[in-house]
Amino acid sequence: MKNLEQRIRNQGVVCPGGILQVDRFLNHQIDVALLDELGAELCRRFAGAGINKVVTVESSGIAVACAVARQLRVPVVFARKKRNIPWTAPVYQANVESSTGSTSNRIAIAKELLGPEDHVLIVDDILANGYTLQGLISMVESAEATVEGLGIVIEKAFQEGGSRLRNLGYRLESLAIVESADERTGEIHFASEKETM
Amino acid sequence: MKNLEQRIRNQGVVCPGGILQVDRFLNHQIDVALLDELGAELCRRFAGAGINKVVTVESSGIAVACAVARQLRVPVVFARKKRNIPWTAPVYQANVESSTGSTSNRIAIAKELLGPEDHVLIVDDILANGYTLQGLISMVESAEATVEGLGIVIEKAFQEGGSRLRNLGYRLESLAIVESADERTGEIHFASEKETM
Repeated sequence: MKNLEQRIRNQGVVCPGGILQVDRFLNHQIDVALLDELGAELCRRFAGAGINKVVTVESSGIAVACAVARQLRVPVVFARKKRNIPWTAPVYQANVESSTGSTSNRIAIAKELLGPEDHVLIVDDILANGYTLQGLISMVESAEATVEGLGIVIEKAFQEGGSRLRNLGYRLESLAIVESADERTGEIHFASEKETM
Repeated sequence: MKNLEQRIRNQGVVCPGGILQVDRFLNHQIDVALLDELGAELCRRFAGAGINKVVTVESSGIAVACAVARQLRVPVVFARKKRNIPWTAPVYQANVESSTGSTSNRIAIAKELLGPEDHVLIVDDILANGYTLQGLISMVESAEATVEGLGIVIEKAFQEGGSRLRNLGYRLESLAIVESADERTGEIHFASEKETM
């Protein structure tokens, strides 16, 4: 998605450790017009897949999940970090390591919100090592629901999450695929550039 | 907002300690059609207030903030819990106690995202003791931006946040005001019922 790549190039910041900050338009400040475009494009890519629920995790997946869900006219369920849950109700849960591996979060979804009748699009803003997506997938599959696809705004191809998930057979669509991000020069290259060379 | 009150009555769950769970349509599962209606109603109430930014805090404020911001055609800025921030950039910050007073979160907004030119609508899903809103207000005012209003989906009038903020002179609009929620019977009463008696 050219428009998104331009925004990443113009407003993204490459930080030490290959962290690509998109705080100016996606996950601290949100450009709601761009958000609508992201939702429409994900909807277009998964049209006809029979999706009846969009699943994501708090926090920064929520905006994108709502943007695609309103286009698909289906509800969103966002997994909650376990410490935020006052429930005593039964939950599906997963442990998700942070991208640095230094911390781990237990995330959960109430059992009443997912079941075998569900055909799920899992959505997130950033895909790096893929641990979060794998946690979401394991909860959806524990509910005997079907994962119809994974919709991502920005995939970092220089981390292994995307290729691992594709190898597992999931349909993964990323609106921008970052091949490299140089923290010294700030230069960012996208997979789409290779295709057109 | 009658439609919202009906949903709260039909799908809300009253838990011990006066906690009103709206997990089935607002802050775990999200009904995106209802979300659009909430956004449109908040937009209607604050039309003409000159708002150029919507501010909220992760996580469950994000969906509502995006819904109203897309109607107002302005960006959203959501405050982040400090532990989620990899930045070294300067931030405005506030300490926010949980409603039970048992935990405290430091929340922050990057200084580059708020300034004296901003006319801000602060949005959140639930208003109980008001500590979160006061934290957001203090950050907006530290940035010398103007708080034009506070837009809330569900206000619990049996906790003191709403009346304190109105007494401080802020324009506070809540789409549903819950007067009482009986954890024994599950019965919920709204301020709007008194008006029509």
